[in-house]
Amino acid sequence: MTQKLTGRFTLPTQSGMEKETLELAEKWGADAIRDSDGTVLSPELTAMDFEIYSTLCMIRADQDWNNANMHECQQKFLMSDPRMAESGTLVVDIMYNWSDEKFTIDRHHDPARYWEVIDRTTGEVIDTANWSFDKETGKVTIKNTIPWHLYTVNFLVYQIWETTSMYNYIVNHWTGPHQSGIDPYQPATRKHLLEYLDKWIDEHPHTDVVRFTSVAYQFPSMEREDRTTRFQDWCCYLDCISARALDEFEKRKGYRLRSEHLVDAGYYNATGRVPSKEYLDWVDFVNEFTTDFAGEWVKMAHDRGKKAIMFFCDHWIGTEPYGERFPKMGFDGLVTPCINGTELRRVADVPYDVIKEVRLYPYFFPVNLSGRNLFEGEGGDPVGECKYYWSNVRRAMVRRCVDRIGFGGYLSLAVKFPEFLDAVEVVADEFRQIADHSEQGAAYTMPGKVVILNAWGKRRSWICGDVPGGGLLEGMSGLPVDFEFMSFDELKQNGLPENTKVVINYGAADSAWSGGRHWTDPDVVIAIRKFVGEGGGFIGIYEPTAVEHQGRYLQMEELLGVQRHTSANVSNRKLIRGQKVDEHFITADVEGELKFGSLAGHVFATNPGLQILAEQDGVISLAVNTFGLGRSVYLGGYSGGPRNLRMFLRALYWASGQEGEYQKWSVSNPHTECAAFVESGVCAVLNNTAEAQSTTLLDGNGQPQDIELAPSEMKWIPIQ
Amino acid sequence: MTQKLTGRFTLPTQSGMEKETLELAEKWGADAIRDSDGTVLSPELTAMDFEIYSTLCMIRADQDWNNANMHECQQKFLMSDPRMAESGTLVVDIMYNWSDEKFTIDRHHDPARYWEVIDRTTGEVIDTANWSFDKETGKVTIKNTIPWHLYTVNFLVYQIWETTSMYNYIVNHWTGPHQSGIDPYQPATRKHLLEYLDKWIDEHPHTDVVRFTSVAYQFPSMEREDRTTRFQDWCCYLDCISARALDEFEKRKGYRLRSEHLVDAGYYNATGRVPSKEYLDWVDFVNEFTTDFAGEWVKMAHDRGKKAIMFFCDHWIGTEPYGERFPKMGFDGLVTPCINGTELRRVADVPYDVIKEVRLYPYFFPVNLSGRNLFEGEGGDPVGECKYYWSNVRRAMVRRCVDRIGFGGYLSLAVKFPEFLDAVEVVADEFRQIADHSEQGAAYTMPGKVVILNAWGKRRSWICGDVPGGGLLEGMSGLPVDFEFMSFDELKQNGLPENTKVVINYGAADSAWSGGRHWTDPDVVIAIRKFVGEGGGFIGIYEPTAVEHQGRYLQMEELLGVQRHTSANVSNRKLIRGQKVDEHFITADVEGELKFGSLAGHVFATNPGLQILAEQDGVISLAVNTFGLGRSVYLGGYSGGPRNLRMFLRALYWASGQEGEYQKWSVSNPHTECAAFVESGVCAVLNNTAEAQSTTLLDGNGQPQDIELAPSEMKWIPIQ
Repeated sequence: MTQKLTGRFTLPTQSGMEKETLELAEKWGADAIRDSDGTVLSPELTAMDFEIYSTLCMIRADQDWNNANMHECQQKFLMSDPRMAESGTLVVDIMYNWSDEKFTIDRHHDPARYWEVIDRTTGEVIDTANWSFDKETGKVTIKNTIPWHLYTVNFLVYQIWETTSMYNYIVNHWTGPHQSGIDPYQPATRKHLLEYLDKWIDEHPHTDVVRFTSVAYQFPSMEREDRTTRFQDWCCYLDCISARALDEFEKRKGYRLRSEHLVDAGYYNATGRVPSKEYLDWVDFVNEFTTDFAGEWVKMAHDRGKKAIMFFCDHWIGTEPYGERFPKMGFDGLVTPCINGTELRRVADVPYDVIKEVRLYPYFFPVNLSGRNLFEGEGGDPVGECKYYWSNVRRAMVRRCVDRIGFGGYLSLAVKFPEFLDAVEVVADEFRQIADHSEQGAAYTMPGKVVILNAWGKRRSWICGDVPGGGLLEGMSGLPVDFEFMSFDELKQNGLPENTKVVINYGAADSAWSGGRHWTDPDVVIAIRKFVGEGGGFIGIYEPTAVEHQGRYLQMEELLGVQRHTSANVSNRKLIRGQKVDEHFITADVEGELKFGSLAGHVFATNPGLQILAEQDGVISLAVNTFGLGRSVYLGGYSGGPRNLRMFLRALYWASGQEGEYQKWSVSNPHTECAAFVESGVCAVLNNTAEAQSTTLLDGNGQPQDIELAPSEMKWIPIQ
Repeated sequence: MTQKLTGRFTLPTQSGMEKETLELAEKWGADAIRDSDGTVLSPELTAMDFEIYSTLCMIRADQDWNNANMHECQQKFLMSDPRMAESGTLVVDIMYNWSDEKFTIDRHHDPARYWEVIDRTTGEVIDTANWSFDKETGKVTIKNTIPWHLYTVNFLVYQIWETTSMYNYIVNHWTGPHQSGIDPYQPATRKHLLEYLDKWIDEHPHTDVVRFTSVAYQFPSMEREDRTTRFQDWCCYLDCISARALDEFEKRKGYRLRSEHLVDAGYYNATGRVPSKEYLDWVDFVNEFTTDFAGEWVKMAHDRGKKAIMFFCDHWIGTEPYGERFPKMGFDGLVTPCINGTELRRVADVPYDVIKEVRLYPYFFPVNLSGRNLFEGEGGDPVGECKYYWSNVRRAMVRRCVDRIGFGGYLSLAVKFPEFLDAVEVVADEFRQIADHSEQGAAYTMPGKVVILNAWGKRRSWICGDVPGGGLLEGMSGLPVDFEFMSFDELKQNGLPENTKVVINYGAADSAWSGGRHWTDPDVVIAIRKFVGEGGGFIGIYEPTAVEHQGRYLQMEELLGVQRHTSANVSNRKLIRGQKVDEHFITADVEGELKFGSLAGHVFATNPGLQILAEQDGVISLAVNTFGLGRSVYLGGYSGGPRNLRMFLRALYWASGQEGEYQKWSVSNPHTECAAFVESGVCAVLNNTAEAQSTTLLDGNGQPQDIELAPSEMKWIPIQ
């Protein structure tokens, strides 16, 4: 175990750090170097025997082109703030409350064809004969308005300040001209960008790996006049709109997309909403053309002997790394910043065989993510931050490993902290050990699959969507469980994966995560009832399967054994009490009272056999039920913490009817976890805390072994 | 003020208590006597110079007739418990989980015509060709069922055990045969009951007042096999169904009512649900025919020289005392049991000039309402209970007085407690003083009307519908405010009453009280926006105006200045903070922190001018906003208590722009209240507690006067 592995590590460096680069490359086992924003690699550095990463943001790269072709800038729909009519005419300053530094109204395309004026009191679309846009004033005049009704205008804008440029300008105090982003969906621009890339490659002979940032379309960030953010969503397909694409959509999909399908009454299809068919069609359409031109870029890099990897952040919209088209682009790898287990799994679980690399925290920056001193000034704790982030990432890494790690920032700052350099060495070594063992075979998991069912499914694996109390997704990212995300549509199309043991549904009612109207779909309902009735497990958290339909709110009442108290059923006497149970497998090692934060609401038992394991302020917060041959667990809420997570892990074993299996490869102390690499003959025991911990490991035969762990330690225990 | 008034008092008595009756009639000023359940009046008593009340429950009176005509017994629809199909055939024991002592399946009328079998997974009504009812077994067999789907049967039953009879049998341990209730909607029964009444009047020559209990239809109480109650709702039109009425409904209303319109997916149109058009048509239809036959009964009593009063409880369904048809029945009065201010206002506010009488608590029974010892055994506190109930009722009585009070039960028990007899004397005297002054002119109220807007409006005034935390309706019942209940339909038809100062909307989303879909009705929305925009006040509590529509959840966002955090808008950054305000008129005399129990959820400011007066666990709980010329108050929740009630009263003055008026006729101590009878020249100052209180009264000119009140005391202060 003490054998020193090397490689798999990308080191950020800069001119003037040639000596330190060589020393630290030895210490950290680095095999690649990279520049960072604001640093350059000297000829001495590029001449060294490292793989060289260079970043390239195509849509921002040639500002001269962008400036000369502003009509091919990226577009989007905005909705004007609702305005109330006071008489029969309403004049709307549509840009009110929108940043005119970032957005400018599209004056090229016919408003009557692309825009919509909507009466938000009735939902009625106003006839184009009743409104007009004044190009000079930027105002829309609506005729025949009804006093006290609210009106909005969905209108196309060009985004003249690219989101990342704006972010750096404001947050990192960059100066210089505002950069714009060009839309490669426009044929002239698409042709130009290919030519630009050709030339760029010529000018970067030392570059081994072109790291594209990322493809074309940023996740939306929408600002007010005072530059504060009104709306941001990491997954929205809003910054990939153009008049041209809307016209093409009609030809391809056979119907015309309304502005309202994208504006969505001002909700802009936030990812937490149950997505509409039209929005999903739009996602698919954008994914198709993004794949098409990104494929050209990658091919050009390959043809010139370079690797191409994609930054799985920023302009990732349209690329869908979990989608079927992703391999068509041909990327050799994905690289992503990674702050915790969820972000690790986001890239690690991408179902394609590409190099996966994560940039760990802290970046070698003067301040940390909270803006507090880190590598400069007083009070910084780079060693503590390094251990903290790593222990969060590590517990997910042992479940699904990536191929490489790296850091970012200014090496000149980091070298002033020798203890930090040592801490990074530990990270690098531990990572390589995990990666090495993972290649022999993945760590042991609870037998069978666990499906997380929501409206987005596979394509939003580990991306977002937590219980309102938070902490579940992050907790799951490091559990010894084979999780798989699945949408209702995927369920209907393919059924549950073979060997599925448990289905989880969680979230607030009417959210994409709980599923809303999908629970009125008989195919979905039947699939889940049948699965559990025939012996499967179900875990419902917060407002699982919730939608008012045919006399019930929690549609899976039979499974859960509880029903939610609503305005509709409030006069029904709640006669069935269930049974309070003091001892249960799920809560066997919980010390003290379980606390789940705010519960979704009052529930009452519907099955006399319901076993109530916990209550919070008199409300059932944890209960278990049986249905047919299967088992179900209801959790009224969830909040983070090792104790809740341990309870949740035990709930998975119980729901799948595998309590006996829990005696294999588990640890007694909830602040510790284990990962048995059976093929490698070792078991990692992790201390997730900054304090020393004692724990008892049960091995694959259930044999106990007491283990002492130093703060943040990971110990490799040989398997007997 | 010390002048002794008499009368307005009904004394319960019984044989053997002749001497005490005369003494207490003198002490309490009684002018009428009554029997109670289980007591009789001796010839000596009926010969005395009192008005004699006698009770008569027509539908239960002649059990011989009822037993001989069980096919004319009252009917209702039940829904069988949802059953899951396991194969292509499902046999449903429809009476499973329903009391067969109380209900028996209707085997007379064609199930195919009246019943419905519904697939509760899809909502589809199963074709009658696919199911059949077996009269022998009481089971319904459904063919071509889909495994894992749920099915229910809506079926007609006869109610063979009348609800009050069952209640007394179970709770009060009565014995003897179960009584049934007959349906006067059936022509033969209707004719017979008139003949019965004719004879009954002959047999009750001493009766001055026939107290009908009540007319025909009980509020529904639905029991399981073990006699526990599954469903109860004081206002549901469910026990007034018959095959005959359903057929007649079709002729009168032009469409056929489905069983599902009444079964309502098992919610049975609980009053907390936003009522459907079909259900409201049914209520109207039943009200029409109930009015018709009750009118015949009253006329017969009148023709024979007797008064007829209606018990506003038990079988009151169909009578609608707030409805337009009520006077057509011709009742001389209403009598109702009355435990608090809400129940007092329920009868006091009935908008017709009939004698209104309330039965106060405690009844002279061995045990109290909680089943604990009262007039028998150890530990009873009849004096304390008398004062407690009276202080709750009294604060409403000074706002809207009734004509008479009375007690019930066994005088033989009460006479053993001389202090109780004294306490009743105080009640009787205080009541007569209030009644006397009220006749000169109602007590002072805040200028203008306050409208409580919900889906039921006037017809459910003070009947039910509170905020989820409770305590608001009861609190309002005793405030010096001219409240009026109004439905959305009434609002659309008639507009707000002249001189309306404030509109209140409260309750859980999608409840009848908050209003649900009515807030998508442009006419409603315009009416309220216009009212407030032009200077009116609005108070929204819990989830006011809540329904997801056109990009918002709280539809009156402009008025309230806040919006609710939902799954849809969660990714919108909440940029507007509002202003935290430490001092405000509304909270001026609140000591300590306001607590409203569970809030409805997180809200965020939508108007930068929002003034936040209180937060609870970091969530806005009380905020005020301006809109046009008007003002609005948002309360995230409400729970009872004098402090919250005082804040609410001040909110009403503030919302109506009448802060200056608050200096007239108010008291400083929230445990005290005042009622200025300006025409009488006196002001009542009430101590609502069992402790002594000091308070400062501001008179009509704002002049202060310090007042000391003994426990539970009401003091009459002369107006200068």
